[in-house]
Amino acid sequence: MPAGLSRFGAEERRRLAVEACRMLERLRRHGAGPDGSVSRLVYTPEWQAAMDEVALWLSEGGLEVRTDAVGSRFGRLAGELPEVVLTGSHMDSVRGGGAYDGVLGVVMAGCAVRWLAAHLGRPRRTLEVFANCEEESSRFHCNFWGSRALAGLIEPGESERLRDASGTSLAEAMSACGFDPARIPEARRSDLVAYLEPHIEQGPVLFQANQVIGVVDRIVGLRMLTVDLDGMAGHAGTIPMAHRRDALTGAAEVALGTERIARRRGAPTVATVGSLVVQPGGFNQVPGAAELTIDFRHPEEQVLDELESELRQLVAGVAASRNLTARVERRLGQRPVHFDERLCAALEAACAEAAVPWRRMPSHAGHDAQLIGTLCPAAMFFVPSRDGHSHRPDERTEPEHIGAGIEVLVRALVQIAYAEP
Amino acid sequence: MPAGLSRFGAEERRRLAVEACRMLERLRRHGAGPDGSVSRLVYTPEWQAAMDEVALWLSEGGLEVRTDAVGSRFGRLAGELPEVVLTGSHMDSVRGGGAYDGVLGVVMAGCAVRWLAAHLGRPRRTLEVFANCEEESSRFHCNFWGSRALAGLIEPGESERLRDASGTSLAEAMSACGFDPARIPEARRSDLVAYLEPHIEQGPVLFQANQVIGVVDRIVGLRMLTVDLDGMAGHAGTIPMAHRRDALTGAAEVALGTERIARRRGAPTVATVGSLVVQPGGFNQVPGAAELTIDFRHPEEQVLDELESELRQLVAGVAASRNLTARVERRLGQRPVHFDERLCAALEAACAEAAVPWRRMPSHAGHDAQLIGTLCPAAMFFVPSRDGHSHRPDERTEPEHIGAGIEVLVRALVQIAYAEP
Repeated sequence: MPAGLSRFGAEERRRLAVEACRMLERLRRHGAGPDGSVSRLVYTPEWQAAMDEVALWLSEGGLEVRTDAVGSRFGRLAGELPEVVLTGSHMDSVRGGGAYDGVLGVVMAGCAVRWLAAHLGRPRRTLEVFANCEEESSRFHCNFWGSRALAGLIEPGESERLRDASGTSLAEAMSACGFDPARIPEARRSDLVAYLEPHIEQGPVLFQANQVIGVVDRIVGLRMLTVDLDGMAGHAGTIPMAHRRDALTGAAEVALGTERIARRRGAPTVATVGSLVVQPGGFNQVPGAAELTIDFRHPEEQVLDELESELRQLVAGVAASRNLTARVERRLGQRPVHFDERLCAALEAACAEAAVPWRRMPSHAGHDAQLIGTLCPAAMFFVPSRDGHSHRPDERTEPEHIGAGIEVLVRALVQIAYAEP
Repeated sequence: MPAGLSRFGAEERRRLAVEACRMLERLRRHGAGPDGSVSRLVYTPEWQAAMDEVALWLSEGGLEVRTDAVGSRFGRLAGELPEVVLTGSHMDSVRGGGAYDGVLGVVMAGCAVRWLAAHLGRPRRTLEVFANCEEESSRFHCNFWGSRALAGLIEPGESERLRDASGTSLAEAMSACGFDPARIPEARRSDLVAYLEPHIEQGPVLFQANQVIGVVDRIVGLRMLTVDLDGMAGHAGTIPMAHRRDALTGAAEVALGTERIARRRGAPTVATVGSLVVQPGGFNQVPGAAELTIDFRHPEEQVLDELESELRQLVAGVAASRNLTARVERRLGQRPVHFDERLCAALEAACAEAAVPWRRMPSHAGHDAQLIGTLCPAAMFFVPSRDGHSHRPDERTEPEHIGAGIEVLVRALVQIAYAEP
């Protein structure tokens, strides 16, 4: 163990937590709403200000800062080898989100690499902090924009095609910030050998179990479907109950049946009907049409297939019994992603060294690590979300957990970037 | 029986049906959509054109035409007495409605009174055809505007307060058509002694029973409620099923429970969840809030009280079992309306004389007759709606049923307006 790590203790962790929280406070001003929320959408002035602020901070810590073709920032601590161990997360937020989702991972990575630069000096492998420009799709439907750029997974013409709610194309928004859409392919990386992403859990598991670190060994698969039901609209007074072909009551049976499917299967299965829209929607009209969305998540693709099949049977049964016509369409399928076992083991060893309570767990949300994992071994770890909240103004992670997380990241990076092979 | 009635037979009925259908075709041009729909909203140019067209037609039939302060037209056949027997319905439509709802009642009334003017001449009581300006609330939330004006039930300031979707006030819309909102009180009538309203059924009862006339002796009561459920929004992936407080699945239970309440009670109870809106509504978000509307209808106020009470129990149970907060609010209550028994008997006698298959039935929808019934004895009769449809482009009543309905109305008006007391 490098001698510098012996500095770690309660005091050092607290010092790092203070540094991280101070940085979080500086960043949350960019896009702050009156209700304590943060809305920091890619290529907006507040995003630009936050990116500049984080770049300055990394640079003050002795890191060499670079901006890539899509606007992500990298704070580099050059090692003996050119191969890069990357760590960080995304800087953008959802609309009306909080100050922790994404940005806490950048700040923890920055604190860790700044600490390493100061106390352990030059690593064997090069270290880079990743302040990813975009992950949330909150302005454009460009999910994982920054990490897709690294992985070379942005399609030609995509920046012209995608538009925000006001009609501005992603390409125009980039240009307004000084980035040339034609140069997007230059963001592609071929020098990455590992990626570690710290992130808030966004769920209640660690918080309720009083654990501090979740070593994330996989991201569950996702299957999104829409169900359209068509019946017969009519007057709420004049159509007797027995003559109705009510699309809304059919949709209600599908929603409850979907919940039953997930509960029957048990954890970690989750199923969500997030949207239900009925037509015509009048107070005094029997609904003639309903559209609902279904979101299934599970770590195994095979189970997702079974869940989809159960849903299709459910919908067919509801449609038959209520004399509705039904259409089920698969809108999105993301296969489960398995992270690198050696990196997970390094994180577990780091937790053990730091004497931090941890568990292995899957992520039920998508993250940059699944994209960067197509380029190089990748893994993630979670810190607790108070009450399991995220994407809300009151999302929060306790400073002591932030300090512990930074220590774990430092210790993992030491194993990966400083240790002899 | 006046001698003129002996003219009636298959041929006379067919002739009247042709006249009525020709008038319906002329009127459906005003507000016609490319899909065969009719959207004729009050105080629009298409409404104005239809009102002018109907006025011209009544005038051509020898009736003295007058426009009241809110724009309703009256075609008068003066009798020996100044007291007025009124018959007709409304000229406006819902958005995307058909060519029959409302306007068929005006046309049938016009055909009947024109026929009486031509064949029986001066009645004892004065007859008036009522072409009501507005009933549907399809532009402003001004339900029963024209008949409320007759009944003196428009509140001071209402025309300034009510606005359409584009922000135009009802008062502005009136003024644009040449009506002075300050003169609304002048529309009030004190000379009415009877009101007979022909209308399409808007339900499947007559159509399926192969009956031609429904003598409507009451309008069921209506109880409209909203249910608000609040749970906890969250990420569709990261919140385990057991930790959810999903407002949408709660709302689905309320919707199905509402249906069960109506079915358990049996016909003629109807209950409708017409609108269900969830927040935040994203594909990948557990819904944190849901609002649904409940519409109960039944001929007895006591039963409506019981239905509301059952609903409140249902909602409380769902909220408790799902850890949601719930609020149930009564938005509208219309007590059941009982029509005049002597007028119903006159309609039944007319059906018997005309040898038309008929039944007594309640109306499950609100109609002008319930407002005018506060001024004078009132009743209604229905003609069949093909497949029970209404408020749709394909709503339709067969010409033979229209002809039979006109004969029934003629015979009823003879009893009410021509016969000696």
